[in-house]
Amino acid sequence: MKKTTLIKEGKAKRLYNTDEANVVWVEYMDQATALNGKRKDQIAGKGVLNNQIDCILFELLAAKGIHTDFIKKLSDNEQLNQKVDIIPLEVVVRNAASGSFQRKFDVPYLQEFDQPVVEFFYKSDELDDPFINTNQAVALKIFDFEESQQLEKLALQINRILKERFAKAGLQLVDFKVEFGKTADGEIVLADEISPDSCRLVDLMTKASLDKDVFRKKTGDLITVYQEVLNRLNNSQEEAHV
Amino acid sequence: MKKTTLIKEGKAKRLYNTDEANVVWVEYMDQATALNGKRKDQIAGKGVLNNQIDCILFELLAAKGIHTDFIKKLSDNEQLNQKVDIIPLEVVVRNAASGSFQRKFDVPYLQEFDQPVVEFFYKSDELDDPFINTNQAVALKIFDFEESQQLEKLALQINRILKERFAKAGLQLVDFKVEFGKTADGEIVLADEISPDSCRLVDLMTKASLDKDVFRKKTGDLITVYQEVLNRLNNSQEEAHV
Repeated sequence: MKKTTLIKEGKAKRLYNTDEANVVWVEYMDQATALNGKRKDQIAGKGVLNNQIDCILFELLAAKGIHTDFIKKLSDNEQLNQKVDIIPLEVVVRNAASGSFQRKFDVPYLQEFDQPVVEFFYKSDELDDPFINTNQAVALKIFDFEESQQLEKLALQINRILKERFAKAGLQLVDFKVEFGKTADGEIVLADEISPDSCRLVDLMTKASLDKDVFRKKTGDLITVYQEVLNRLNNSQEEAHV
Repeated sequence: MKKTTLIKEGKAKRLYNTDEANVVWVEYMDQATALNGKRKDQIAGKGVLNNQIDCILFELLAAKGIHTDFIKKLSDNEQLNQKVDIIPLEVVVRNAASGSFQRKFDVPYLQEFDQPVVEFFYKSDELDDPFINTNQAVALKIFDFEESQQLEKLALQINRILKERFAKAGLQLVDFKVEFGKTADGEIVLADEISPDSCRLVDLMTKASLDKDVFRKKTGDLITVYQEVLNRLNNSQEEAHV
């Protein structure tokens, strides 16, 4: 397999074509952004950490029966994915209040919900990624009602798996964002990445942030906390030998 | 029946207790507001027009089987309602793009939808009435999933009835906002008002606005267009004698 032409450079990854039609070569970059890309820093070592964390989580989800675009890890900062058409929605799942939810509804930080909250945001740079409900997204022909229910169900399944896995690593999964894509034969699969860039994680005991919030709020060193997340995942076993 | 103490003065109505425990006396005021109450004008004759239009529409909806809080018209600007606990949501139904939908998603004015779009806004002055999805509203304990589906179904039924009625009066119902309340025995009923304050109406042929948009955008005289809506409703029959 050879990487060929650049498809696109995102905020934290470069996607390349390969000599196989339906396979994409993903290179994680040493770049962090905040404020919808307005703040952009180069941070040596970030790409390697996110790629490794993402590979652990996508392999786990695949093992638990979630269909994903992940094929395999290539190197510390590279992986191969299936080529998919991304559904232009950020699908957010929240277990406790933080970020935009906390600001919008003025509820206490980390207030837990009886049931996880799923939200859709319409991926559109021109429109500034607006929050959107199912009826609006159907009206805009982003998906149909059946696909909407499928995305919500998948997002909740992924939440259950990730929440449990992070808890084993001493981390509370506060919320996370995922994206889905359609494969060449029309199947909806989990795509994009899952990493401390896209998850809110706090220490189960101290509630200290171990995610991109330390970069957004300038409250800590990104590499130190991402490395801590990777170490904790590596040092906690998915299948415990009792 | 006697009106007793003032319960509250809203943007366009005063609600009074009566000597019957579960009955509210509603007085429509000659007041129009825009920009969430920041702009406030006294407009002689507005209360009489809105009360009469509201009575026609609530009587129609009741006749079509929608349970409402409406009891009867008392005078040109007064009516009696059942006392209800208002569910703190503005329920919006859209048949075509206008207002916040048009701005948020940058679609053409009056672009029609394949299916009506239902939206919820959380009634909270402190939070500035934020747009909210079902999962968020459940998390905030505004309603449960079953009640959410009930509200959405009722809103769509009301839309079908109103759309048809306005069409007979030569008007296109672009969108409207309703509120629901719970009666003493827990039944969810349509409440608040339906008038050109809460509906977007355009002439079926010319697409000229016949609603509060003429006040919001300062493009016409409110009384002239509200009177036109009332005249058209009075001059078009619900049950045509063929």
